Amino acid sequence: MVQRPRGTRDFTPEVMNRRLAFENLLESMALSHGFKRVQTPIFESLDLFTAKSGPGVVKQLYAFQDKSDRALTLRPELTAPVMRMISEEMRSSPKPLRLSYFGQCFRYEESKKGRYREFFQYGVELIGASGPLAEAEVVSLAIDMLDSCGLVDYEVRIGHVGVLRDILTGLGLSEEGEPEPPVASAMRLLDKGDWDGLAELFASSGISSSALDNLRKLAELDGGSETLDSAREILSALEVSHESLDELAELLAALSALAPTPPSLKVNLCVARGLDYYTGMVFEVNVAELGGEGQVLGGGSYRLLHLFGLEDLDPSCGFGLGFDRVLLALEAQAERVGRSEVVPGETPRPSTLVMPFKIDAHAVLSIVKELRDMGHIVELDLRGKNIGKTLDWASKNGFTNVVIVGPQDLENSRCSIKNLTTGDQNEVGLDSTSISSVL
Amino acid sequence: MVQRPRGTRDFTPEVMNRRLAFENLLESMALSHGFKRVQTPIFESLDLFTAKSGPGVVKQLYAFQDKSDRALTLRPELTAPVMRMISEEMRSSPKPLRLSYFGQCFRYEESKKGRYREFFQYGVELIGASGPLAEAEVVSLAIDMLDSCGLVDYEVRIGHVGVLRDILTGLGLSEEGEPEPPVASAMRLLDKGDWDGLAELFASSGISSSALDNLRKLAELDGGSETLDSAREILSALEVSHESLDELAELLAALSALAPTPPSLKVNLCVARGLDYYTGMVFEVNVAELGGEGQVLGGGSYRLLHLFGLEDLDPSCGFGLGFDRVLLALEAQAERVGRSEVVPGETPRPSTLVMPFKIDAHAVLSIVKELRDMGHIVELDLRGKNIGKTLDWASKNGFTNVVIVGPQDLENSRCSIKNLTTGDQNEVGLDSTSISSVL
Repeated sequence: MVQRPRGTRDFTPEVMNRRLAFENLLESMALSHGFKRVQTPIFESLDLFTAKSGPGVVKQLYAFQDKSDRALTLRPELTAPVMRMISEEMRSSPKPLRLSYFGQCFRYEESKKGRYREFFQYGVELIGASGPLAEAEVVSLAIDMLDSCGLVDYEVRIGHVGVLRDILTGLGLSEEGEPEPPVASAMRLLDKGDWDGLAELFASSGISSSALDNLRKLAELDGGSETLDSAREILSALEVSHESLDELAELLAALSALAPTPPSLKVNLCVARGLDYYTGMVFEVNVAELGGEGQVLGGGSYRLLHLFGLEDLDPSCGFGLGFDRVLLALEAQAERVGRSEVVPGETPRPSTLVMPFKIDAHAVLSIVKELRDMGHIVELDLRGKNIGKTLDWASKNGFTNVVIVGPQDLENSRCSIKNLTTGDQNEVGLDSTSISSVL
Repeated sequence: MVQRPRGTRDFTPEVMNRRLAFENLLESMALSHGFKRVQTPIFESLDLFTAKSGPGVVKQLYAFQDKSDRALTLRPELTAPVMRMISEEMRSSPKPLRLSYFGQCFRYEESKKGRYREFFQYGVELIGASGPLAEAEVVSLAIDMLDSCGLVDYEVRIGHVGVLRDILTGLGLSEEGEPEPPVASAMRLLDKGDWDGLAELFASSGISSSALDNLRKLAELDGGSETLDSAREILSALEVSHESLDELAELLAALSALAPTPPSLKVNLCVARGLDYYTGMVFEVNVAELGGEGQVLGGGSYRLLHLFGLEDLDPSCGFGLGFDRVLLALEAQAERVGRSEVVPGETPRPSTLVMPFKIDAHAVLSIVKELRDMGHIVELDLRGKNIGKTLDWASKNGFTNVVIVGPQDLENSRCSIKNLTTGDQNEVGLDSTSISSVL
């Protein structure tokens, strides 16, 4: 028997209904902020991702060769494809561009709850605009999206890689070097909280241990915008410019007007997101309910095009939202917070089964058509069972109403309508207007 | 420079907007007929498609092996995956099931207009119900979909493989045999209109040439339901049962109530769709504008599960709609028929740019937020250019309104709103309620 490939999922109508409601919600929120949907292919040239993430990424990719020996891969994420698309199709479009995207991504790894080999990402990119206002537009959209789908108790952590870069270069570490520039190594260690590794790196570069202590103090700062004052003192002690911190302060001020009510917004200057191409603000959203797989969203300001051998535009800013993980979080929270819908808008519209009983079905077909034309969801009964069995089937299948037309009904131009939600039964004329009035 | 893989496409916001409108339209029509969306993975076990279409299909597939040497392939179509899903996930769901699906499919072949290596298919399957009424439900949905998106001058051709099978087995051809059963060979030749090939096959099987003449007469029938009368005469001459024809007649009668107005509905008993698994009604929709690539939709009644080593359910009935091709046809027809929208509903909603001019942008941020909360599409201007350049940019980017707030405005708690569609300019109070009232 042929089976579904490992790490992939099928979505049944019930599950898919929720996913579509969620997608529509994200889409409508992105649109209200001016972000318009684009779409790129499911597979790309392998180069696109090795340029962005290094050759080591290949072992996590579904890479393959086509019949002309081109090296292709299923996409592992969507930022690089969108940037590639812009360079090919939209270089002359007036900037800034506000783009959104949604689709499958693929990652070859052991599958477990919240991590699938085929997973779904929703994201946005604001391209060709930089600075605190642009960043605030992006972060506020993330918060609006999570709020609108009813997520609670999530934590937004915002940092700025400029702060760390300024500190590390100020200490004399280089941004160049093979196999990994010392600044990049240090940021990776900071992102992981590997202080022993960092101490070793500093010692081998002749950097004083007091610098390490100051960095540790910086890392321990984790709070609201008051954190910035403490950070300023540390930067002064390290004789580092406050420029990046000032940008972050302006972003937080803008955010307090654009998205005033996230459950928890924390400044953490050691959020580095482990990737080289971020240039400014970086942010992540975590949901405690999901434990170790709790990061549901992440992004920041970046420059990427030069990695593909292309002329860079102004910096861009964006985020990716883990569609599957946010859904898991919503499902985990729904019962605790007493929400009747896991995703707002997921409740299906009322639907009607039209059942010709012991009559020629042709007598009801134009009524079926007319009810559909009026906007009702209507199925013609195709099972031809008795009334009890049909009501039972309709009930199991979530129908709201069953219109029954028997021989006597047909003779009198009448029909019975059973409402399966209320149990009410109505008898009305056998025409679409009369039936529609009680559905 | 990294490029898009050959035969794939990027969809810019303008193009994507149309595609989303089209998808929503198909979705809402499917839903009104009771068909609910499901989704399956982008790749499947290679077996799934070789079982359905034979090993020859591999050369047209994007087949690859994962790191555990599993033979996988990007899906070339969606019926087999949906049937696989039903066998794994929905065997106990009460039948009949009405399912719809939409997504990318992949075909390794030379790409040309209307044929891409990554293409999109929308389709439906009615599973576990058979007979003329079930078939009429499916065909009427196809017609409603095409009508609702505004397609004109399309031709629906309906046949029934049972008629040909009855004739061919009646003539003594076998449904068994290697490498291809004689009945399958004959149907393939008929589908292609290869009469010489068929004459050869008949001669080698000792079938009289008068049978061939009768078949040719049958193939030449191509018209409305009156065609069935002529077909009945031919079947009588061949001493073949009328059972399949009677089913087709009943389907056409039901269709005349459920979907009374397709531009052209023709019966053609040699539509065989070239595939073995069809068991009853088969149908295709063609659009003349598209020339040789004019088939935009096709389907029929089939049995498929046994091909995957699974117990068969009742016959199913479904169709696949070529999403890209129908769009091409709509684009080709739009000008000729004078439609203002290529796809109904594609016109974007009005959108507003809020421009802080020579003032601190923070003064307008809560207004931006409140307008979004009210449901408006709002962007904060991030370019900081002068008013003339900003209006020009806004106009090029399709904004409906620009809200301008300068230093004087801020002082007086006023703002100017320029409507870029009408050219009107309004001055209103600097609060979201006043602004919203003129957007």
